[in-house]
Amino acid sequence: MTGKKITVREVFLPDSIAVIGASSDDQKEKRSWTGNLMDFGYRGRLYPVNPKATSVLGLKCYASITAIEEPVDYAIIALPRELVPMALSDCARKGVRVAHVFTSGFAETASEEGRRLQAEIRRIVERSQTRVIGPNCLGVYCPEGGVTFANLPKRHGSAALISQTGAGAARTIIYANSLGVHFGKAVSYGNAVDLDSTDFLEALIDDPETQSIALYIEGVRDGQRLLQLTQESVRRGKPVVTLKSGLSGAARAAVSSHTGALAGSDQGWQAYFAQSGAIPVSTLEEIGEQLLALQGLGECRGNRVAIIGRGGGPGIIATEICERYGLAVPRFSDETKAKLAQTTTAEAGSIIRNPVEVGIGRAGAQQSYIDAFRAVANSDEIDLILTHLNPEAFILYGGNPAWVSHSVNALLDVFRDLPKPVILVLPPGEAPESREIVIELWARCAEAGLPVFRGYESAARSVSKAIRFYQYHDWLNSPLAEETDAD
Amino acid sequence: MTGKKITVREVFLPDSIAVIGASSDDQKEKRSWTGNLMDFGYRGRLYPVNPKATSVLGLKCYASITAIEEPVDYAIIALPRELVPMALSDCARKGVRVAHVFTSGFAETASEEGRRLQAEIRRIVERSQTRVIGPNCLGVYCPEGGVTFANLPKRHGSAALISQTGAGAARTIIYANSLGVHFGKAVSYGNAVDLDSTDFLEALIDDPETQSIALYIEGVRDGQRLLQLTQESVRRGKPVVTLKSGLSGAARAAVSSHTGALAGSDQGWQAYFAQSGAIPVSTLEEIGEQLLALQGLGECRGNRVAIIGRGGGPGIIATEICERYGLAVPRFSDETKAKLAQTTTAEAGSIIRNPVEVGIGRAGAQQSYIDAFRAVANSDEIDLILTHLNPEAFILYGGNPAWVSHSVNALLDVFRDLPKPVILVLPPGEAPESREIVIELWARCAEAGLPVFRGYESAARSVSKAIRFYQYHDWLNSPLAEETDAD
Repeated sequence: MTGKKITVREVFLPDSIAVIGASSDDQKEKRSWTGNLMDFGYRGRLYPVNPKATSVLGLKCYASITAIEEPVDYAIIALPRELVPMALSDCARKGVRVAHVFTSGFAETASEEGRRLQAEIRRIVERSQTRVIGPNCLGVYCPEGGVTFANLPKRHGSAALISQTGAGAARTIIYANSLGVHFGKAVSYGNAVDLDSTDFLEALIDDPETQSIALYIEGVRDGQRLLQLTQESVRRGKPVVTLKSGLSGAARAAVSSHTGALAGSDQGWQAYFAQSGAIPVSTLEEIGEQLLALQGLGECRGNRVAIIGRGGGPGIIATEICERYGLAVPRFSDETKAKLAQTTTAEAGSIIRNPVEVGIGRAGAQQSYIDAFRAVANSDEIDLILTHLNPEAFILYGGNPAWVSHSVNALLDVFRDLPKPVILVLPPGEAPESREIVIELWARCAEAGLPVFRGYESAARSVSKAIRFYQYHDWLNSPLAEETDAD
Repeated sequence: MTGKKITVREVFLPDSIAVIGASSDDQKEKRSWTGNLMDFGYRGRLYPVNPKATSVLGLKCYASITAIEEPVDYAIIALPRELVPMALSDCARKGVRVAHVFTSGFAETASEEGRRLQAEIRRIVERSQTRVIGPNCLGVYCPEGGVTFANLPKRHGSAALISQTGAGAARTIIYANSLGVHFGKAVSYGNAVDLDSTDFLEALIDDPETQSIALYIEGVRDGQRLLQLTQESVRRGKPVVTLKSGLSGAARAAVSSHTGALAGSDQGWQAYFAQSGAIPVSTLEEIGEQLLALQGLGECRGNRVAIIGRGGGPGIIATEICERYGLAVPRFSDETKAKLAQTTTAEAGSIIRNPVEVGIGRAGAQQSYIDAFRAVANSDEIDLILTHLNPEAFILYGGNPAWVSHSVNALLDVFRDLPKPVILVLPPGEAPESREIVIELWARCAEAGLPVFRGYESAARSVSKAIRFYQYHDWLNSPLAEETDAD
């Protein structure tokens, strides 16, 4: 092990990949590593390795990695665990830069054999230039590089994910994608026998394509380095969203049997969250939601929310939840109220205050809705607008399930021109008539860049944390913070 | 106002209904009160009232309610606000038992005229035998009686909803329905000029069809009575799930402009939740989830959870969330572990501890999954089983999006025979291939009575509160509690 920093190119953009343990059965391999890479559009050189085959999916197959004539950047090792050390030694001999060990059954199991084999891998790593991802993990996803560990979205974006878990990483990427948050790079690194979250984080902080970073961590070898790197990332304006799993009780105990990691001390993690500027989250879904809030808030630095919606009870519930998460829902001035009163919201079924309840209005549902945004968006009493629509409201008002589409479409037409960021809460349609409509609207909002959340809690929680992150970042970069540092 | 207790029959099962303000335009009325009642299958006598029409939707139309020859039990008043007092006086003269004032624009507005009109309604109520629901509300839903305020599910169940908000009530009913929680009675009562939450609660406690009661309250006139009635309901084993809206800050201020209610003091509501046995919730969705947990736990009184699922990271996250909400995730004994080890879960990709990570197994995904339930369900180390499936896992394992159906179907075949209750967490399918599958599975679980939640948090929160409710109820009914009372 060189200790040399790894680069984004080495991990995520290899020019050549060997699949050690490619199946000799093309039908199987089509749905495994070689097939996945071909389907995903990997354009580098691809070398299946299996002593029992001469060709895999039309590619020449090699008996071992050392038999390949050209240099190999990256190897995927998908072999029974007892064969992994030998394959890794071959990779080292071949000069492979990064080897990903997919195989599980190592230190994460209670078995002595698993621990012994992981220690053997560790010894090979220490003697070689080859860096190892894993074992017991899914490895790397990078749409730009055509690299993936599953049938994941091909669209790439500026978020990066460093995840100790594998299945969770896939779900995180897919859910975030549906929200309009796209990952450019992701790595599932499992037992971290060599490369740890800190190594990937260090590389991604320097990556100009990466604008935000999410971490799912069960344990880390060098907590101090993680803290420092997170601070550095935050200072540079790249938020770090951290899900630390196994903070307490049985979850803590479960960590060691999942990736063999040590969960770390409570105090250590408290210090991490208190001092690093990391944004703490506690579910995989929250990762996507937090990244969505960060990318949707733009230059917003204040926490004063105007709430606009349909349905009086839901507006009050939204207000209460916003306040619980530290957002302010200020009273409107008489001036703003007068503006609202001039709009068509000033009719039966409307309530003119914050939260605003927008009635259908004589000019029609869409018009009254949009007029309410225009009436409050220019006010300096608020920093952002949270709007909520109830997809079931059609059942009460006129019977047309498309009414929610009309409102969302009207909002999509204007939200970019409003001087304040807009956050939409649109819960899943529960009535069969509204279900498909809502799914289509979520996709349309994601595409247009209108942040859409599925509930008040996820919206208020994520928005509040994003605002605090930006405030903290600004403070870190202010002359005042520098003076404090100098003291 | 008589002060006499109203009955479930008077409010929810009227033999005759007058719709005062039925439209003379049949196309309009078809989608309004008269049409809704006909579509919903109301089988009592139905009397449209409008001086400008002689017939509405094929029914004889009356110039006023006093012109109707037969007695009328129940009236819906859907007129411009200034006409409401006169219509209500007519109802009183006619001897109508319950009048529902749909019209809004009263004390919930800032206008003097609205307040004056509400005071006038109040005076009429005080002089008459007619009890009033509203104004500014949607009124009554009761599938058994064929009464509804919208195109809501016709299936009826044993839950009841008393809701100050209207749109929220519709969404609550529809969402709960999709979870397999069916309401037999619901009322939206708005400004509560006469009948308040306490009146409906008193009636529903005595209703043998009602097994659980949910309240959405903005304010209540007699807090002490609400506390006593809730205690009584809890003592009798009918849980009361309470969403008190507007507990703090701007939400509190917003309440008065929604239904004209006084939000009440913080201390008063703290005492209510501390002393009544009500289960507090904070969103409309939580109402359905809480009722689902209550109906799904059966005789379960302990909080020790076995967690079984696929995906190691998600299992740890589930564990952490269970613990956060006060559930215990105990270590398994060697005996239980040995049983698990005998199942096909004892293969690569499995982790044998609590949380259990179930690998695919040589006997196939379904078999290994079900075997794990059998291995732990008989153990007296646990009280219930929480299982989670990741609908996106097919992307990693074999590529068949139906794998999640196979697992759920296998579980549906056996869960009733297991000696411990099972709770399933099945998040929405985010990949297009799994979306429809998951929606269909939710419906199948709801139909079969397997409680299915869409996330770990909603499951752990609701289950934990349900267990505490049952423990508290048992204690209330124990000899020890009686002795304490006697002291």
